[in-house]
Amino acid sequence: MTENKKLKVVLAYSGGLDTSIILKWLQTEYDAEVVTFTADLGQGEEVEPARRKAEMLGVKPANIFIEDLREEFVRDFVFPMFRANTQYEGDYLLGTSIARPLIAKRQIEIARRVGADAVCHGATGKGNDQVRFELGYYALEPDIKVIAPWREWDFASREALLDFAEKYQIPIAKDKRGEAPFSIDANLLHSSSEGKVLEDPSAEAPEYVHQRTISPEDAPDKPTLITIDFEKGDPVAIDGEKLSPALLLATLNQLGHDNGIGRLDLVENRFVGMKSRGVYETPGGTILLAAHRGIESITLDGGAMHLKDELMPRYASLIYNGFWFAPEREMLQAAIDKSQEHVSGRVTLKLYKGNATVIGRTSDHSLYDQDLVTFEEGSGSYDQRDAAGFIKLNALRLRTIAQRRRKLEP
Amino acid sequence: MTENKKLKVVLAYSGGLDTSIILKWLQTEYDAEVVTFTADLGQGEEVEPARRKAEMLGVKPANIFIEDLREEFVRDFVFPMFRANTQYEGDYLLGTSIARPLIAKRQIEIARRVGADAVCHGATGKGNDQVRFELGYYALEPDIKVIAPWREWDFASREALLDFAEKYQIPIAKDKRGEAPFSIDANLLHSSSEGKVLEDPSAEAPEYVHQRTISPEDAPDKPTLITIDFEKGDPVAIDGEKLSPALLLATLNQLGHDNGIGRLDLVENRFVGMKSRGVYETPGGTILLAAHRGIESITLDGGAMHLKDELMPRYASLIYNGFWFAPEREMLQAAIDKSQEHVSGRVTLKLYKGNATVIGRTSDHSLYDQDLVTFEEGSGSYDQRDAAGFIKLNALRLRTIAQRRRKLEP
Amino acid sequence: MTENKKLKVVLAYSGGLDTSIILKWLQTEYDAEVVTFTADLGQGEEVEPARRKAEMLGVKPANIFIEDLREEFVRDFVFPMFRANTQYEGDYLLGTSIARPLIAKRQIEIARRVGADAVCHGATGKGNDQVRFELGYYALEPDIKVIAPWREWDFASREALLDFAEKYQIPIAKDKRGEAPFSIDANLLHSSSEGKVLEDPSAEAPEYVHQRTISPEDAPDKPTLITIDFEKGDPVAIDGEKLSPALLLATLNQLGHDNGIGRLDLVENRFVGMKSRGVYETPGGTILLAAHRGIESITLDGGAMHLKDELMPRYASLIYNGFWFAPEREMLQAAIDKSQEHVSGRVTLKLYKGNATVIGRTSDHSLYDQDLVTFEEGSGSYDQRDAAGFIKLNALRLRTIAQRRRKLEP
Amino acid sequence: MTENKKLKVVLAYSGGLDTSIILKWLQTEYDAEVVTFTADLGQGEEVEPARRKAEMLGVKPANIFIEDLREEFVRDFVFPMFRANTQYEGDYLLGTSIARPLIAKRQIEIARRVGADAVCHGATGKGNDQVRFELGYYALEPDIKVIAPWREWDFASREALLDFAEKYQIPIAKDKRGEAPFSIDANLLHSSSEGKVLEDPSAEAPEYVHQRTISPEDAPDKPTLITIDFEKGDPVAIDGEKLSPALLLATLNQLGHDNGIGRLDLVENRFVGMKSRGVYETPGGTILLAAHRGIESITLDGGAMHLKDELMPRYASLIYNGFWFAPEREMLQAAIDKSQEHVSGRVTLKLYKGNATVIGRTSDHSLYDQDLVTFEEGSGSYDQRDAAGFIKLNALRLRTIAQRRRKLEP
Repeated sequence: MTENKKLKVVLAYSGGLDTSIILKWLQTEYDAEVVTFTADLGQGEEVEPARRKAEMLGVKPANIFIEDLREEFVRDFVFPMFRANTQYEGDYLLGTSIARPLIAKRQIEIARRVGADAVCHGATGKGNDQVRFELGYYALEPDIKVIAPWREWDFASREALLDFAEKYQIPIAKDKRGEAPFSIDANLLHSSSEGKVLEDPSAEAPEYVHQRTISPEDAPDKPTLITIDFEKGDPVAIDGEKLSPALLLATLNQLGHDNGIGRLDLVENRFVGMKSRGVYETPGGTILLAAHRGIESITLDGGAMHLKDELMPRYASLIYNGFWFAPEREMLQAAIDKSQEHVSGRVTLKLYKGNATVIGRTSDHSLYDQDLVTFEEGSGSYDQRDAAGFIKLNALRLRTIAQRRRKLEP
Repeated sequence: MTENKKLKVVLAYSGGLDTSIILKWLQTEYDAEVVTFTADLGQGEEVEPARRKAEMLGVKPANIFIEDLREEFVRDFVFPMFRANTQYEGDYLLGTSIARPLIAKRQIEIARRVGADAVCHGATGKGNDQVRFELGYYALEPDIKVIAPWREWDFASREALLDFAEKYQIPIAKDKRGEAPFSIDANLLHSSSEGKVLEDPSAEAPEYVHQRTISPEDAPDKPTLITIDFEKGDPVAIDGEKLSPALLLATLNQLGHDNGIGRLDLVENRFVGMKSRGVYETPGGTILLAAHRGIESITLDGGAMHLKDELMPRYASLIYNGFWFAPEREMLQAAIDKSQEHVSGRVTLKLYKGNATVIGRTSDHSLYDQDLVTFEEGSGSYDQRDAAGFIKLNALRLRTIAQRRRKLEP
Repeated sequence: MTENKKLKVVLAYSGGLDTSIILKWLQTEYDAEVVTFTADLGQGEEVEPARRKAEMLGVKPANIFIEDLREEFVRDFVFPMFRANTQYEGDYLLGTSIARPLIAKRQIEIARRVGADAVCHGATGKGNDQVRFELGYYALEPDIKVIAPWREWDFASREALLDFAEKYQIPIAKDKRGEAPFSIDANLLHSSSEGKVLEDPSAEAPEYVHQRTISPEDAPDKPTLITIDFEKGDPVAIDGEKLSPALLLATLNQLGHDNGIGRLDLVENRFVGMKSRGVYETPGGTILLAAHRGIESITLDGGAMHLKDELMPRYASLIYNGFWFAPEREMLQAAIDKSQEHVSGRVTLKLYKGNATVIGRTSDHSLYDQDLVTFEEGSGSYDQRDAAGFIKLNALRLRTIAQRRRKLEP
Repeated sequence: MTENKKLKVVLAYSGGLDTSIILKWLQTEYDAEVVTFTADLGQGEEVEPARRKAEMLGVKPANIFIEDLREEFVRDFVFPMFRANTQYEGDYLLGTSIARPLIAKRQIEIARRVGADAVCHGATGKGNDQVRFELGYYALEPDIKVIAPWREWDFASREALLDFAEKYQIPIAKDKRGEAPFSIDANLLHSSSEGKVLEDPSAEAPEYVHQRTISPEDAPDKPTLITIDFEKGDPVAIDGEKLSPALLLATLNQLGHDNGIGRLDLVENRFVGMKSRGVYETPGGTILLAAHRGIESITLDGGAMHLKDELMPRYASLIYNGFWFAPEREMLQAAIDKSQEHVSGRVTLKLYKGNATVIGRTSDHSLYDQDLVTFEEGSGSYDQRDAAGFIKLNALRLRTIAQRRRKLEP
């Protein structure tokens, strides 16, 4: 880059106050030409208004990128992750984590297209998202310049930030004047809330932090029954109706919302080394996890399932920590995908006041064999007498140990 | 054993029809002197009636052993297992599996005391329990003779069994005349139901198979709030009241029962190689699992938690498969127990119509540090600028890979 | 199969005494039509003589199958296994284990072609090979009848066997009259010796049990230098000369033989539950393992390598135990193969009196970056100050634990 | 600390040029009161001269700590690590890694005793050792100030450093004038060499970099036979003579040295993200690893061994990365130690020109049972017919999969 060429930066731009401040800060502090990228990941806000806001802040129309990534997000990120029944620390469905690699990927692709030198995100310096964005950037474009304003600038307080916004005539919504009582991230998979009113892990999360679900108490008194059809590990239809990935997840979200399903209040371990408390709502994902385990239960071999279960925590940590583009994540994905070839069929679920319960599963690919399992001696391939030998040989090493014990401690 | 000495057999005897038939069969087929062992593991049936039944069937009073093992069961088997947040195949809390090693251990101890040559159990030839019993026997007494009537005798049908019972005047309850619609196992941790009406995994389990819980729909419309106190990974008090292990679990069972908590309808992979469908009810255990994860979330280090999560599926399989007394289970237990030193504190849960939700946790041993996590720059040990270096070095190998890619595919 | 149709059996037939006895036993005991299958897996014996022997024993020419499987063996079984740096129990290169699935697969394919009902192998009832053969058979043809003569027949002694052989005029080599001092298995990957003179694990294995290597003491006093080229994880050339898989392994075998490389004296844990002692010689494989680790060391990402290393023991056990055709082996293979995309380049090794030492590696796909690692501050992407932040955040959870300790034990 | 109190720093001081410069730099740059800590870890250099050097550089006698830590090093760090058969990336015996936590621990203990505010080490900013030292410091004393001169000072070149040394009259050995051709770390377990002449991984390491072993070519033409006795996983005697841990390792080192054993030329993945090439010599450790595997082979149960093998790579990475004091390392240690209870007995090894070969093992705790394994049908607990059932049930799930395949692809 020549001396007098302006720095060109692709900013992940939501259109909100904070990223608008960042936009202006890049223009003033770095004297940068800013390219904005606004993605519809199903966060539930219009993305088009971001165009007007960017223009108002002096971004050239050719530098404004607004894209609907919902289908790609669900098809290429959410569904592959759900094939592994992924839960971080036993519970968290990784709704925020799984969106970051896609945003990073598109920012880099846009940077290449427009010839930008740098990328910029609005994640804070204490969280996981900065890591996820930046590992994504570097994995795809190793020499890209990364700007992380929250780690760099010297605004000493929220007040100073707002003063900067006013100085540059960035509109400030009335409710952003004061401190937000908590911070939110949302996409088609989940909403997360954290900070401020949630920082005391001994205090129950207030009802008003929930964005995407009604409470189980407020949900209908009658259960809702649905079916989900799977093909090769991915859901393809609800109640027999084929749906695109994003539409399917949106439909599950509505069902989950209505039945108070998918709330999680969790203290988790951040990659950067501290514990934090978050409230997550993953209505559709919670149903999907139950359903996927249900269809696997009849179609997936036990050996494969146990291996998957053992690999899952590692896989979850890789995604949580931002290593989506790392070779070991891809290795695990290859193993997981290999296992899903026959994970096809239909699951029936009962949704009721916070519960998503599998009540039936059926599949042409079923490995469940009623003849084998029935108490009646079937015509099948199981001979009860085989169990004696099976047990005897499994016991052999334990018996040898016991014999040693007896020899040494007579 | 001399030629004319009678075989002496310790039978795991419930007092029910099936084990009464086995008792008589041992006497007639093996000409054996039978020693009965009946344990109260919290199955919810009186055990004393087994004494009279055994006597009626000709067992000498000195050969009748009836023991209350509830405290030992919960303290030395259930709680150690829950320290690992153990779930088999993602869901099953191993209520049946964890009881078998204790029964096997007591049978062997009684066999030694009375000088018996053999032990006998009433598990069928297609299930996991035969494996669990027998691996336990062999691990503790390597040369013990094991008698597994269901694999050995030649009763061709239920009818033939009942004829045998009648011939030897074994009382047959009216409802045992016909085929039971499903089979049950129960102890203080859970009830399981399987077989017959449950053998079609596509059909919802009928309400009447449930023994230990009311349905979420029938549960109260108001949530119940409780606290559970933990010390070193084990629960010690409910709502501040110290309780013995068995009493504590019984109390949780009642709370779970009343709130429709702990039902599971699962198709699982048996160790003997087939898939089977079971309906499990683990009311107290389900609450306990949620609470234990809750107290760990603030007191257990992230590195330790992730290691535990990765080891858990293996640990669960070992218990499920009957390897409680195997060295590798003991190795894993040593690792798990090591992690629980600081898992002490109080968890608040909301119980409501099938949901057991952690809503608060507090501990003197907490690793949660509000100063670290707050959005305000704390006085603490976290400097946001450290994140830049952290990310850079974590990214280094990914960047090197990207540089290779660029070199090879310019 | 109709009543009067003869049983048709595909026998894994070596042409030696034992499988000849089995052949005759199948004809006499089962009144079976025997189909013989003799494979050249590089065991170092001619396979054509088996044709004449089979004919002599009354096998129809159309029922005699003799095949050279060396290339398939190395390409589709040995090399995929070496991609994982597979060692069972830290040392064993699985030379016997990896041959069994291929033999089983061909037996089943032949059984289908000739319309056979059954397959038969000559493995004993105490070893691993019976398991490996039979798991292979069942995985490929679930309803095949399996005949395992050593577990079935009632020859009480070696004498009885030989009497049977004499009765049916099976030729007995002079040296087979007495007991062999140990038993041998061999293929292009290795030779194994076990039994008899080797059964005392405290006694050194006699020099004469070694088949495939000279001793290090007898090897030349001068090192031999070679290069091995790899493409995508598999070796393709020695000293720059492209070789087919089987030829390449044969060449390495000769090099290993000449330099006393690849001997292993091991007490191992059999799948059937006992410990056994074997002497293995894997001359080429030992060189190949060192070379593969060498090329991976510069071309494979650290994260991928560590995951491979953690998965390897499981993968090795699966092969050792006979689960080559199990879904979880295929899952692991998918992960391993995914990692090998860039494992290409050249390794230089020094072979000397039992040692196979990597002394150089070079690759267009190298991830080794001299600029990064040099003590001089390079122009590269590494800034030493980043290490401070990296350490600080990695230390954060440890500091929090230390602070807790100080708080609780002031 | 009050304004005018001097900073008091405990420096890990070798007495060499580099740490002498650091000492002076701390005095001049930080105006610090320096406390020196010099440990004898068996690096093969006298430690007492460091006292005089420190005094010459103005350190008060009361601030000079010189300690012989060899026994503690081997007993509490090296031996526990060898219980796990620890190898990083398949080969490296972690000789440098395992020494760092002990040095860090003693520095912190001394800092507490003398009331120091800070600790300081001489590791560079690109390596693993800075991480290992500092994670150790922080884990033991969370608020300690850490000074890492190589990351902090602004000497632009080796020349500038030497100018500083001359200015402060730090003696410079003649051979330190020019650049060293490589850098060395040594302790009782190993010597490592890296940098400069070793930076090209395609070039063979020159013979002169080796410090601790003669080359296999130069080793005697006759093998040396030794025995090593183990108790609970640790070696206690050589050739029947009881030796203290450090003396035992020193004796093995001499044996290894004389027989050209323990050289390793490795490209490894550093925790800080780059690959580097090192030449390691671990003569005694290489023998010890072989011997420990040998004694485990007859005394350790197969299930325990396989679990250990799966846990080992993780355990190795934890030590390599500096997490000795992390809870997850302690969890793994608890599991490993649990497994070693019966790992006692005697191993015979042949040492010959680079090879350390187990040729015999014997133990009162042996699980090897000749009766079980012999080809003769023993009186033992193994019935060959049990194998049929064992195989049948292990095959059951594979058969079910095959049946599905046949159903779907007729």
